[in-house]
Amino acid sequence: MEEMTDALRRAFPFWEHLSQAEKERLVDHTRPLHYPKGGSVHRGDEDCVGILLVKKGQLRVYMLSEDGRDVTLYRLFEGDVCILSASCVLEAITFDVCIDAEEETDVFQISSQTFRALSEQNIYVKCYGYQLTTTRFSDVMWTMQQILFMRADRRLAIFLWDEISKSGSDEIHMTHEQIARYMGSAREVVSRLLKYFASEGIVTLFRGGIRIVDKNKLRGLI
Amino acid sequence: MEEMTDALRRAFPFWEHLSQAEKERLVDHTRPLHYPKGGSVHRGDEDCVGILLVKKGQLRVYMLSEDGRDVTLYRLFEGDVCILSASCVLEAITFDVCIDAEEETDVFQISSQTFRALSEQNIYVKCYGYQLTTTRFSDVMWTMQQILFMRADRRLAIFLWDEISKSGSDEIHMTHEQIARYMGSAREVVSRLLKYFASEGIVTLFRGGIRIVDKNKLRGLI
Repeated sequence: MEEMTDALRRAFPFWEHLSQAEKERLVDHTRPLHYPKGGSVHRGDEDCVGILLVKKGQLRVYMLSEDGRDVTLYRLFEGDVCILSASCVLEAITFDVCIDAEEETDVFQISSQTFRALSEQNIYVKCYGYQLTTTRFSDVMWTMQQILFMRADRRLAIFLWDEISKSGSDEIHMTHEQIARYMGSAREVVSRLLKYFASEGIVTLFRGGIRIVDKNKLRGLI
Repeated sequence: MEEMTDALRRAFPFWEHLSQAEKERLVDHTRPLHYPKGGSVHRGDEDCVGILLVKKGQLRVYMLSEDGRDVTLYRLFEGDVCILSASCVLEAITFDVCIDAEEETDVFQISSQTFRALSEQNIYVKCYGYQLTTTRFSDVMWTMQQILFMRADRRLAIFLWDEISKSGSDEIHMTHEQIARYMGSAREVVSRLLKYFASEGIVTLFRGGIRIVDKNKLRGLI
């Protein structure tokens, strides 16, 4: 009980703005919960499990398409607070995500009803919810940046693969400028990616060309 | 002046929680501003123009990759409030976006400094900022769902359908490049799909635009 109160005080910056009665209400409606590895925590709009404070383990938050493909948005670890599992409480959230436990995970769960009631009567609680959601927005934007714009690495990998398949040689004698033109990209982008491929041990670079040193890794990018 | 005060009162739910001095400060640091069609409003972390209340016109908020490709996140119209143009004020926002005026656009601009000062002294202002950002998060998630999971042909069909529904005309005067930008796709993809739509008798293509010739078939793709 004391461990829990302590954890809540440390996790929530609005704690000092709560009345004694509000603090008690929060503690009374918080409970420890365990999710087994691989267990489902939250499924779109089917439930509203509430705010989860991660004590141990890992939660994965992801989007699911109708045909079952998924995209990881971000992961939460010890000390993180999961807010999208209480998306029903925050009316400005109109989308749904899924959340799974990636490891054996222990959390403190604050019920949605309690969080809703507190955020309606205390502006600091409400503000905390939206501020935390904005932090997750930042996480998602970082992920999207990778997904949407990192496609260039795949295009380059495909290009290199095609070249060595065509020529039967492991060496490609082309400048970065020429490759960029073939790919419809910019020289700077190609140079940056080739440097990255080199640091990953996929290629080595030499004057006027590229040597593929790990075909399996290259293939893995396609 | 009175028009401006009126607009602020209507736009901001925190208005009633402001002291008289805070109201005066807000009004004193708000000014009308015009952006020409195509003009840049905000560029990543290069500036912090403040909160923009759209009076007339349209703002487009988008992500830009290093090699210049862009993905539209959402659009703002009359009566909407642009918050990411003041991202420097909200510390939970750690990403950057770009904002352009898509039409001749008139706004009321509240300076970043003023909004920062008000949100530091008044929790209702701060809460408003984060709540509005969460609403935009919802917009972005909707867009991402389209981009990541929906087949490009369906997205193009939805786009064309929306355009003719908005304009009431069967003709869309846009280049493939422009459509690709709106859809967060590539010109080559749009051109290939339009050629396919044409071969199916759904559209005919003319220089600078597209004519929808079979609305039922188009609808069937949605």
